[in-house]
Amino acid sequence: MLVGRSAEAAQAAADQLGWAESETDWRSAVNREDIDVVDICTPGNTHAEIAAAALRRKHVLVEKPMANTVAEAESMARAAQDAQSRGVQAMVGFTYRRVPAVQLARQLVAEGRIGAVRQVRAQYLQDWLADENSPLSWRLDKEVAGSGALGDIGAHAVDLTTFITGQRFAGCLRDAGHLREERPVAESFRGLHGTVNDQRGPVTVDDAALAMARLESGAPVTLEATRYAWGRKNALRIEVSGTSGALAFDFEDMNVLHLYEANADAVTSGFRRILVTEPDHPYLEAWWPPATVWATSTASRIRWWTSSARWPAVSSPHPASRTVSMCSGSWTQWSVR
Amino acid sequence: MLVGRSAEAAQAAADQLGWAESETDWRSAVNREDIDVVDICTPGNTHAEIAAAALRRKHVLVEKPMANTVAEAESMARAAQDAQSRGVQAMVGFTYRRVPAVQLARQLVAEGRIGAVRQVRAQYLQDWLADENSPLSWRLDKEVAGSGALGDIGAHAVDLTTFITGQRFAGCLRDAGHLREERPVAESFRGLHGTVNDQRGPVTVDDAALAMARLESGAPVTLEATRYAWGRKNALRIEVSGTSGALAFDFEDMNVLHLYEANADAVTSGFRRILVTEPDHPYLEAWWPPATVWATSTASRIRWWTSSARWPAVSSPHPASRTVSMCSGSWTQWSVR
Amino acid sequence: MLVGRSAEAAQAAADQLGWAESETDWRSAVNREDIDVVDICTPGNTHAEIAAAALRRKHVLVEKPMANTVAEAESMARAAQDAQSRGVQAMVGFTYRRVPAVQLARQLVAEGRIGAVRQVRAQYLQDWLADENSPLSWRLDKEVAGSGALGDIGAHAVDLTTFITGQRFAGCLRDAGHLREERPVAESFRGLHGTVNDQRGPVTVDDAALAMARLESGAPVTLEATRYAWGRKNALRIEVSGTSGALAFDFEDMNVLHLYEANADAVTSGFRRILVTEPDHPYLEAWWPPATVWATSTASRIRWWTSSARWPAVSSPHPASRTVSMCSGSWTQWSVR
Amino acid sequence: MLVGRSAEAAQAAADQLGWAESETDWRSAVNREDIDVVDICTPGNTHAEIAAAALRRKHVLVEKPMANTVAEAESMARAAQDAQSRGVQAMVGFTYRRVPAVQLARQLVAEGRIGAVRQVRAQYLQDWLADENSPLSWRLDKEVAGSGALGDIGAHAVDLTTFITGQRFAGCLRDAGHLREERPVAESFRGLHGTVNDQRGPVTVDDAALAMARLESGAPVTLEATRYAWGRKNALRIEVSGTSGALAFDFEDMNVLHLYEANADAVTSGFRRILVTEPDHPYLEAWWPPATVWATSTASRIRWWTSSARWPAVSSPHPASRTVSMCSGSWTQWSVR
Repeated sequence: MLVGRSAEAAQAAADQLGWAESETDWRSAVNREDIDVVDICTPGNTHAEIAAAALRRKHVLVEKPMANTVAEAESMARAAQDAQSRGVQAMVGFTYRRVPAVQLARQLVAEGRIGAVRQVRAQYLQDWLADENSPLSWRLDKEVAGSGALGDIGAHAVDLTTFITGQRFAGCLRDAGHLREERPVAESFRGLHGTVNDQRGPVTVDDAALAMARLESGAPVTLEATRYAWGRKNALRIEVSGTSGALAFDFEDMNVLHLYEANADAVTSGFRRILVTEPDHPYLEAWWPPATVWATSTASRIRWWTSSARWPAVSSPHPASRTVSMCSGSWTQWSVR
Repeated sequence: MLVGRSAEAAQAAADQLGWAESETDWRSAVNREDIDVVDICTPGNTHAEIAAAALRRKHVLVEKPMANTVAEAESMARAAQDAQSRGVQAMVGFTYRRVPAVQLARQLVAEGRIGAVRQVRAQYLQDWLADENSPLSWRLDKEVAGSGALGDIGAHAVDLTTFITGQRFAGCLRDAGHLREERPVAESFRGLHGTVNDQRGPVTVDDAALAMARLESGAPVTLEATRYAWGRKNALRIEVSGTSGALAFDFEDMNVLHLYEANADAVTSGFRRILVTEPDHPYLEAWWPPATVWATSTASRIRWWTSSARWPAVSSPHPASRTVSMCSGSWTQWSVR
Repeated sequence: MLVGRSAEAAQAAADQLGWAESETDWRSAVNREDIDVVDICTPGNTHAEIAAAALRRKHVLVEKPMANTVAEAESMARAAQDAQSRGVQAMVGFTYRRVPAVQLARQLVAEGRIGAVRQVRAQYLQDWLADENSPLSWRLDKEVAGSGALGDIGAHAVDLTTFITGQRFAGCLRDAGHLREERPVAESFRGLHGTVNDQRGPVTVDDAALAMARLESGAPVTLEATRYAWGRKNALRIEVSGTSGALAFDFEDMNVLHLYEANADAVTSGFRRILVTEPDHPYLEAWWPPATVWATSTASRIRWWTSSARWPAVSSPHPASRTVSMCSGSWTQWSVR
Repeated sequence: MLVGRSAEAAQAAADQLGWAESETDWRSAVNREDIDVVDICTPGNTHAEIAAAALRRKHVLVEKPMANTVAEAESMARAAQDAQSRGVQAMVGFTYRRVPAVQLARQLVAEGRIGAVRQVRAQYLQDWLADENSPLSWRLDKEVAGSGALGDIGAHAVDLTTFITGQRFAGCLRDAGHLREERPVAESFRGLHGTVNDQRGPVTVDDAALAMARLESGAPVTLEATRYAWGRKNALRIEVSGTSGALAFDFEDMNVLHLYEANADAVTSGFRRILVTEPDHPYLEAWWPPATVWATSTASRIRWWTSSARWPAVSSPHPASRTVSMCSGSWTQWSVR
């Protein structure tokens, strides 16, 4: 069952995506006996309430950002912990964790293949707001979205850092702000894009967010999330430098992981371009057949859900939410001429 | 319903892939009333017989290479033409045509964006036989497979050339041969790889095949298909040079098309790296949501089938088969020391 | 004439590099009548004194970092200004400005090809200290070198940002520190590498430095300089995102500039890989012949010097020095476990 | 001394390039006592005569293609052999051999790092004739140039194949022809480009040349040389696949060699991107300082000359010339509509 605010739009989406039914009242959906799993993909300001209700009876997948405030995230985490004692699973939808190249990166760090982590640089670059006439949407409204690039895509950069390094963040200095203070008001939307009218309204979230952070070990991390980087469509990038090697990944080349091992013969040392599409690679069994190049799919997503041994239930606010919180103290406002 | 020679293996595969039933007799399958479509994915020496039977009642998808001989391919094409008059569709499974970057390449050539085609270089490089101890399989047996790299993967390079340029081949000089004359006999297989014993048997198909060919317009084409290129997992590559530009594609970076336009400002001219993942790109509606990076899926494959307006039924031997045939005259045998 | 502290080493270097004479007393060199130009390539703590003496009579090129303190840099700038009124030229050796791809980047920004600058990300990644047993050298001694990665290579990232954008920095939040607190003491050196003994001494400069800065226009800049990034040999990288396009450069692929123009046809938009080696490209006349791929040379360096119309004399502390100074307030010390 | 046909142009070039004198009579130059080395960089139809005269007294560097016919090349080789007995050195200017990444490739093959050579693919792609209105020059006149893309740039692809593999060619099937039968007549030239008038003249050499060849070991080689590949400025590329690994090089990324080693851990196997700029890399001592990225220079060229231990004198027709000759039998003429 697919739930939306407009009966008509919900039914149209259900038809397009192949869902049996649609509904406009999420409460009735989370109370139905024949539904086992709830996927919360509404704007962030509604996550906590829906999750609280859904966790009473259903397994819950909440899309990122988990919540708009740390207080909400903490209450959700407590509810998830309670639910877990009743056999109910909960998780946050950080889909990029399940890319085989990312799985391999995590595995190699855990095996010590690059030694101890010394530095991380993580970026998430997109360009869908780089057109200064692209319209306002709920994602640009702080009341609804909570934050801008930071929560929307920065959360993935933070999550990938913790997922690959196996460490949490210990501190953060953040800078963020508007690159555009007003935008045209949208008449209608098609995905992230839309048609506009001649009115303008304020952008109340950050267009880009930067941070200099530390991991638990003290290792420095540079973070950047922006929706203002012309030409970068989905550049979720991470490079981890260790004491004996390094790893680099860019989601725009999602089947590839680059690995540098310092202990190799110096004359032939270099980053190795690993095409992470072979049968021995992690998580490939949930993907498409080997010997070719593949991507995320509904099938693999369902596989994630059912492979609970690998996907730990959320029992405390997700590190990404905590990091966003730690970063909140140093907010500054830009005004770019 | 999934059909295989061994009842046990067929049922195991059906379980794994989610098919309702399995069967060992393909004749009973093609006669069942509740089956509409038959996908022939057996070794090439059985295609013609199964296709002939299936086309009497079912839509048919035959995997490449279409047949082991041109005579068989021609008889299949005639059967497909007859079937079409009864409303039955037939096609060959050249899946790489449906990669959005390839669709865009074809569209740009048709629109004249690179001018008239002057040269093509097409390669399909794999490495699954580069290990000289990898075992014999039916794919290395000429009786069953018909040919080696030429038919198995060279067919894709030929097909992509015709698909993107919109031209058929007019002539061909071919060179092909063994890089390894004997291989260990396999005990068991897992996909393309397997365990071996200490017996050895002859390789009777080509390990690599080269060709210098011409399109109808006279434009020269270099073709190479090899399963001996260490480090290349699935490098189906094509570069088309025209009178006013060029296109380049490599399936190992499948979401990207490179475009050069000669009429641009000379100082800033260069190949443009197009990330073919946006809503306005061709065929994206059959793929996953925009603003991210995707790959082929069962969903998109079904979409191909049902979008018959785009996928013309095969009414004559597929150009790839004809080209393989044209190339047959110049076979030479290598013996690499 | 080549001047060094050790007569023997200076003569050996002079022989190897083709200088007519060697000398151990820089004062006598700067007073010789037959010398027109002095290139100061000593450690940073000696720059101010030598420059003051040399500027009385000679044109002066001072290698970066210009000085170890802003006070020294300012006194040097005043001396250069005085000298300029006497026809004496002075400059700082930011060699990477003269790479044709960088020249082209600056030209395209000035022409408005990417619109107004909205964001910059600049990195200089090296790995020559990533081996935690690589030895101490004067570059790791704060008394002599002034700073570590920040001044040594971060200065280039800062300089390239100002050179390409045409803007100075308006503010900066910096983080920097040790990734290694002690290192083996060197017995002898060959370039940046050396043999060590079993003693260890303290590293007193930063191994890596991060900054979040602002340009005059308010545009945010992320800066990173590190000598701890395994596998990155000389990755001086900059990406400039504007209101209508973007530019990207990496010195490890030094003949290439990537340009994205947002106003292009959306379906074929993408970063253009410009091979900056053609006759119409800027600064190519000081390089090697067109139609091939080239790099910096002594010849082009001499050309820089003599093309004074293009290389303005330093009349105030160089922006890179000022930025390092602005960044000094927020120094924090890491201790990475 | 610089020799040219026009006194004025020769003097202008001498001034620009820093030669002490100019001359219009090559015979007087090769007889001067104070000249030790003659570099023959005239059109191919004059090489044999000049070389014969020069080898009597001078060391000789002849630019490629060595000669326009194999007969001429053989006579030159005999003269070089005689000269060698008198202590006179002779060589052909295959400059790309001296790129450090190419030197490393040769060294790795010789050391067996990729096992026995099984396949080679070599291409030289340029675009300076892809503009169908670019003018006629002597390079398009068979009488003067001997051949087109085949001799001009194909010679480099052939030479690199023999240099890196250490094998000569054993056979060849060639295809080549015109992609453009007439071109505008040039009024004046600047390098490879020029202004044209409204007359047109015939192109009498090949625009592109393809070959399928064999090495002595029987390993197949695909060769392509074209001046018709829009967007490729100087793409001299070679990939060598062996029994246990592979190497790939592209001169458009000249500081990089890609190496695949099959015996590595399968999960992390991939092509390694080696930045061939470090002190331990071959031939770097003749280049610029390590830790940065460099290119060919006059300095390194002189170093080649004087490092005679490494550069064997030509004592028989150069393999590239022989291969061109072997390929001559199968010439066909294209006519591309």
